[in-house]
Amino acid sequence: MNEETTGVWFIGARGSVATTAMAGAAAVRAGLTAPTGLVTESSGFPEAGLTELAGLRFGGHDVTSTPLAKRLDQLAGAGVVPHAVAAAVRDDLAAIEGDLRTGQGAGGAEPQVETAARLAADLAGFRDRRSLSRVVVVNVSSTEPPAEVLPEHADLDALEAALDDGRAVLPPSSLYAYAAFRAGCSFVDFTPSAGPRLRALDALARRQGVPYAGSDGKTGETLVRSALAPMFTSRALRVRSWSGTNLLGGGDGETLADPVAAASKTASKRRGLAETFGYPVDGEVHIDYVPDLGDWKTAWDHISFDGFLGVRMTMQFTWQGCDSALAAPLVLDLARLTARAHERGLAGALTPLGFFFKDPVGTHEHSLTEQYRTLCDWAARL
Amino acid sequence: MNEETTGVWFIGARGSVATTAMAGAAAVRAGLTAPTGLVTESSGFPEAGLTELAGLRFGGHDVTSTPLAKRLDQLAGAGVVPHAVAAAVRDDLAAIEGDLRTGQGAGGAEPQVETAARLAADLAGFRDRRSLSRVVVVNVSSTEPPAEVLPEHADLDALEAALDDGRAVLPPSSLYAYAAFRAGCSFVDFTPSAGPRLRALDALARRQGVPYAGSDGKTGETLVRSALAPMFTSRALRVRSWSGTNLLGGGDGETLADPVAAASKTASKRRGLAETFGYPVDGEVHIDYVPDLGDWKTAWDHISFDGFLGVRMTMQFTWQGCDSALAAPLVLDLARLTARAHERGLAGALTPLGFFFKDPVGTHEHSLTEQYRTLCDWAARL
Amino acid sequence: MNEETTGVWFIGARGSVATTAMAGAAAVRAGLTAPTGLVTESSGFPEAGLTELAGLRFGGHDVTSTPLAKRLDQLAGAGVVPHAVAAAVRDDLAAIEGDLRTGQGAGGAEPQVETAARLAADLAGFRDRRSLSRVVVVNVSSTEPPAEVLPEHADLDALEAALDDGRAVLPPSSLYAYAAFRAGCSFVDFTPSAGPRLRALDALARRQGVPYAGSDGKTGETLVRSALAPMFTSRALRVRSWSGTNLLGGGDGETLADPVAAASKTASKRRGLAETFGYPVDGEVHIDYVPDLGDWKTAWDHISFDGFLGVRMTMQFTWQGCDSALAAPLVLDLARLTARAHERGLAGALTPLGFFFKDPVGTHEHSLTEQYRTLCDWAARL
Amino acid sequence: MNEETTGVWFIGARGSVATTAMAGAAAVRAGLTAPTGLVTESSGFPEAGLTELAGLRFGGHDVTSTPLAKRLDQLAGAGVVPHAVAAAVRDDLAAIEGDLRTGQGAGGAEPQVETAARLAADLAGFRDRRSLSRVVVVNVSSTEPPAEVLPEHADLDALEAALDDGRAVLPPSSLYAYAAFRAGCSFVDFTPSAGPRLRALDALARRQGVPYAGSDGKTGETLVRSALAPMFTSRALRVRSWSGTNLLGGGDGETLADPVAAASKTASKRRGLAETFGYPVDGEVHIDYVPDLGDWKTAWDHISFDGFLGVRMTMQFTWQGCDSALAAPLVLDLARLTARAHERGLAGALTPLGFFFKDPVGTHEHSLTEQYRTLCDWAARL
Repeated sequence: MNEETTGVWFIGARGSVATTAMAGAAAVRAGLTAPTGLVTESSGFPEAGLTELAGLRFGGHDVTSTPLAKRLDQLAGAGVVPHAVAAAVRDDLAAIEGDLRTGQGAGGAEPQVETAARLAADLAGFRDRRSLSRVVVVNVSSTEPPAEVLPEHADLDALEAALDDGRAVLPPSSLYAYAAFRAGCSFVDFTPSAGPRLRALDALARRQGVPYAGSDGKTGETLVRSALAPMFTSRALRVRSWSGTNLLGGGDGETLADPVAAASKTASKRRGLAETFGYPVDGEVHIDYVPDLGDWKTAWDHISFDGFLGVRMTMQFTWQGCDSALAAPLVLDLARLTARAHERGLAGALTPLGFFFKDPVGTHEHSLTEQYRTLCDWAARL
Repeated sequence: MNEETTGVWFIGARGSVATTAMAGAAAVRAGLTAPTGLVTESSGFPEAGLTELAGLRFGGHDVTSTPLAKRLDQLAGAGVVPHAVAAAVRDDLAAIEGDLRTGQGAGGAEPQVETAARLAADLAGFRDRRSLSRVVVVNVSSTEPPAEVLPEHADLDALEAALDDGRAVLPPSSLYAYAAFRAGCSFVDFTPSAGPRLRALDALARRQGVPYAGSDGKTGETLVRSALAPMFTSRALRVRSWSGTNLLGGGDGETLADPVAAASKTASKRRGLAETFGYPVDGEVHIDYVPDLGDWKTAWDHISFDGFLGVRMTMQFTWQGCDSALAAPLVLDLARLTARAHERGLAGALTPLGFFFKDPVGTHEHSLTEQYRTLCDWAARL
Repeated sequence: MNEETTGVWFIGARGSVATTAMAGAAAVRAGLTAPTGLVTESSGFPEAGLTELAGLRFGGHDVTSTPLAKRLDQLAGAGVVPHAVAAAVRDDLAAIEGDLRTGQGAGGAEPQVETAARLAADLAGFRDRRSLSRVVVVNVSSTEPPAEVLPEHADLDALEAALDDGRAVLPPSSLYAYAAFRAGCSFVDFTPSAGPRLRALDALARRQGVPYAGSDGKTGETLVRSALAPMFTSRALRVRSWSGTNLLGGGDGETLADPVAAASKTASKRRGLAETFGYPVDGEVHIDYVPDLGDWKTAWDHISFDGFLGVRMTMQFTWQGCDSALAAPLVLDLARLTARAHERGLAGALTPLGFFFKDPVGTHEHSLTEQYRTLCDWAARL
Repeated sequence: MNEETTGVWFIGARGSVATTAMAGAAAVRAGLTAPTGLVTESSGFPEAGLTELAGLRFGGHDVTSTPLAKRLDQLAGAGVVPHAVAAAVRDDLAAIEGDLRTGQGAGGAEPQVETAARLAADLAGFRDRRSLSRVVVVNVSSTEPPAEVLPEHADLDALEAALDDGRAVLPPSSLYAYAAFRAGCSFVDFTPSAGPRLRALDALARRQGVPYAGSDGKTGETLVRSALAPMFTSRALRVRSWSGTNLLGGGDGETLADPVAAASKTASKRRGLAETFGYPVDGEVHIDYVPDLGDWKTAWDHISFDGFLGVRMTMQFTWQGCDSALAAPLVLDLARLTARAHERGLAGALTPLGFFFKDPVGTHEHSLTEQYRTLCDWAARL
């Protein structure tokens, strides 16, 4: 049992995922609900020396100022957090307000180097104020548009020189990762944004001795795809087309309604499929914003495949889930595992965490069962 | 490369599955079609010293006398075998007619011990006539009603004494297995019937030094279940109910429309689910005979599960496949693998073949990916 | 505008449907919610001289004693009634408690003739106590098993003689209808039970000058069927099979898990299909009790049909609805329409109300659009 | 019984829809198959004085030169036309080759006025050569991109002046309609292209005394929508979102993969929904080209709606149909009905034919049942 206290610092701390995660951690800790959805608390999972749920302390950045208590009410109204749980954890969430800070604004006049220093100071302040062994930064903010590729992204010296020159060369998610690494914090990117996935940032993480994990949490359509695709492969059935439509309400749906932002998400969805089968597969992936669906999402996938003698067959599935409730426990799992890896001295990309991601860093393995086995083997040795 | 010739003897040789398997083996051998659906021919599968497809010789028992050529035309008309393939393999199938024999009738006056001797002689005759290294018997006949449990089923001496007394103590599928073992042949049960799954027959197989595999080929709803269920488990999502409806035309649908016969099939379907989750799950499984669907089957499954904080979510899938085209390549895979196990001196139940079965003998592992890994490891050592 | 006050007397007054109807009537009347789902309040519906929602007074029989306030809390917890609405109408429901009476027990020693007199006295008492112009009795109790057919059911004199002899010849639902008619009340049967559908009771209704409507509210799978089936007919597409699976939690699901009780429900579901197409159609209908689904129900239907040149095509639909929320507004519609028919002097079966029923009395028209047109034409003349 | 002979002239005569229609007419006429899918041959349809199927003569324009016999083989291979039917009607189709002509090319040097004269001469030549009472032109060619709106489209004099000036002011589909009207032929537009839907062409049709019908045949997703949407309206259920994804192979799928061409199709699909409900409804419509699906199409629709007290419910449907087999009989129905209207002296837009179209000219009624009633009433008076 690990009795240290670990800080979990959310980018997007006032959003649905972070609020659900913090409410859920409090509820599970208080015995109000079973730890359903928490992989690291499930019966088959190895003892990995993780910080107890009771040892997690929360803080974070956000660009809005909606009180957590108000967001909690919204989540209760939407059926994401049961009314009784919301009432019971209201004070826990109010106590976190003091550790929330304003994130980077949308294109202010502040040079990125100064923003980074300010963000890093927020992290160090949180760690000192709460006497934390370490802090893991978790990005659960809205998906950002694909970033322009610059030469500075590939070279740490060039990057630092550009920042020192007062240039704005990093997309917002990568600036957060830069600040985290500078502050000696590990980083989890639950979004498809660039985040720590720049060669220069990987070098920084290794120089600083901090690990990072990503990218893009696997919570719905892609989760099911990674469970089903190996079925076709192992049975020697040839998939001809795999088409998908995702209907999303909520904040992320609105962001993704912008086709430019959606591009990075659909690209990461398609990659897994091609890498799994080893041959090209027809079919589009759509992400539609349907405001009326709120926190719920529905995915429909249609798969056509050849069987023996080329006979054509089809499969369809519909997944109807609550986005925040699917993401929140994984975010807690990732924070605990990444903090533990940090404690054990691992640095750079944590490839054994691919189980949690649509676009896992450092690996092309997309079979969910293989990913789970890899995760468990790794956790058992932590 | 294994240049021996191996006999594949079908129980139900004039049915859709056997005919598709024989037509398909001829078509693949002749290069008319890709080996889609054949696990043992797929790129990831280990070299296991299996008999080449060209080295398989076919024969079998059946209780009807429909010529294979006529069955082939029906399969072409139903879209199971492409018209061009049917035309090209017509002569191959006609050449098999000489190795087909009449199976056991429905409750004739012949004592079982004599029937068994006749069936065993058919097998030995086939082996000698065609100079085969060995013969594997594959049961693809219609599902039989659940058999009454008798004390003789548990004890080989008691069984043989009963048979010698002229008593009829074995269900038909088990009598076929008895005859096969007596003739020194291995046995694959692709149906949910009792077949070799009696303690007395297991003892006989081991005494005779022959292996057997079963039971109940996994080709549709259960295949998908075994790919999806581990997803819920590894993600710590709690499945509350899993309901299924199977619509089948064709011969097997008609048999299963009899609720008594269906009982053995639905029981084997439910077992995998309970064994996977380790807790009881609500939900029925229906098998409906819808004659109009012909060789095609449609399964719809509805799954409700709890996520984080007990939030209820659902998943549905529809599987629309061609029964014979799904079963036929697996039957060829099983025949080759079982024959090879026989060649290598294995006897008794072949538990590493669970990948192919709804109700795998000797194991409670139902995760498709784990089953595939086990199969490949085993095959690599054959 | 009709300023009379009308009594609505529920059989099953403490159940989910009645409670939702009473809560909803109060909420709509108070302007807390839009009248969604109320056909008689929708924009296209003719002015038909109906009692205002504010003019409805509620009472009823039940065999349980669960307070309405407690049932309301259960419905709020299950997401059937929004929490805010539940809080706002709590007092309205408490005020109804005084008009609830104990229904007939399950096989007590009381002769049916005396039970009938007691039930009728309850109705008359309600009418007098609340100074109601008239009372409509609405059966929303659990489905009863199919009733044995007796000669007394076909002849009013024989029926009354048998009752006078102290014999128990009526199923419970029909005894309620008998009592209602004797008390001069109209009757709506929202269940598939026998209710008023006996020739003797039809004679009684006409003798008493009271109308009745039924049977078996159309709220889910059958509703969709009655919208879709005419599409196939008008387009000359030949339906080959139509299979359905219904997953129900809640009280009705439990009742219908009993295959005997389910028989009357599946029979009324199948009748509509055969009558619509005029030729036999393959396919089963299943009703499964899945406790975990609570008040929610899911229906999956699979339809295979022939197009031009006999080409086979398929359609599937899934309907995911809340049973009580679907039934409750229809119950209010039916009560208002039946009371108005009573006021206008109509007696016997109200065939123009077929729009609301799976098994509409006195008509074989099952096309939803035709039923709606018939309903509107009739209502416009009321 | 109408013993006249009527010409049916296809724009796109060598395409799948036209070939299936011609093959099917021959097969039904010869008694090889039931007239499934032909509305005008179904039992409930009024006797309307239509030309017998045996009285139809076929010809048409196309820009490709694929022989009809080859197209027929492709359709048989794809399962659209049964092999036996294809063999039996091969000679009928070969006999039509002599009445096929080359259509307008893609942007040649020929002035539109001359192209129109040539096309009109082809029509007149067909009518004379085959001694036809009249000819109906049916557009089943690929969807064209949305046309630029020009002032000449709204005024017949201006249009004719522009053409006389050698200007190319008409989109291809409208030039075909112009030529048809000039030749005294009626016109059916089964596509979403502009066709006869220009005010100037409407004036021309009325001046020439010829009728026309359109636009955009209703064969799949929109057909189901027009059957289901009235269900929600009549039950006072408030639809919140209606999302759809269409997966198409075949030629039309490829055309529609071009987002510009798709725009006119998705626009006509959405119009019906908004006009039906009278309030805005969320949701996108996607049309994906999935080459692997061939002539088959799959549509998935997801509908979310409010019930009583605002409770949110959902419905989904999947439609799996063969595009050509769905369209072909409707094309024959429309040809016969339009020719009969011509015979009876009707001119201009035939609004009672809205039953057949996604975007019916001259009416906002989208309820399939109402459209069918209107069609039957009209046909009975023809």
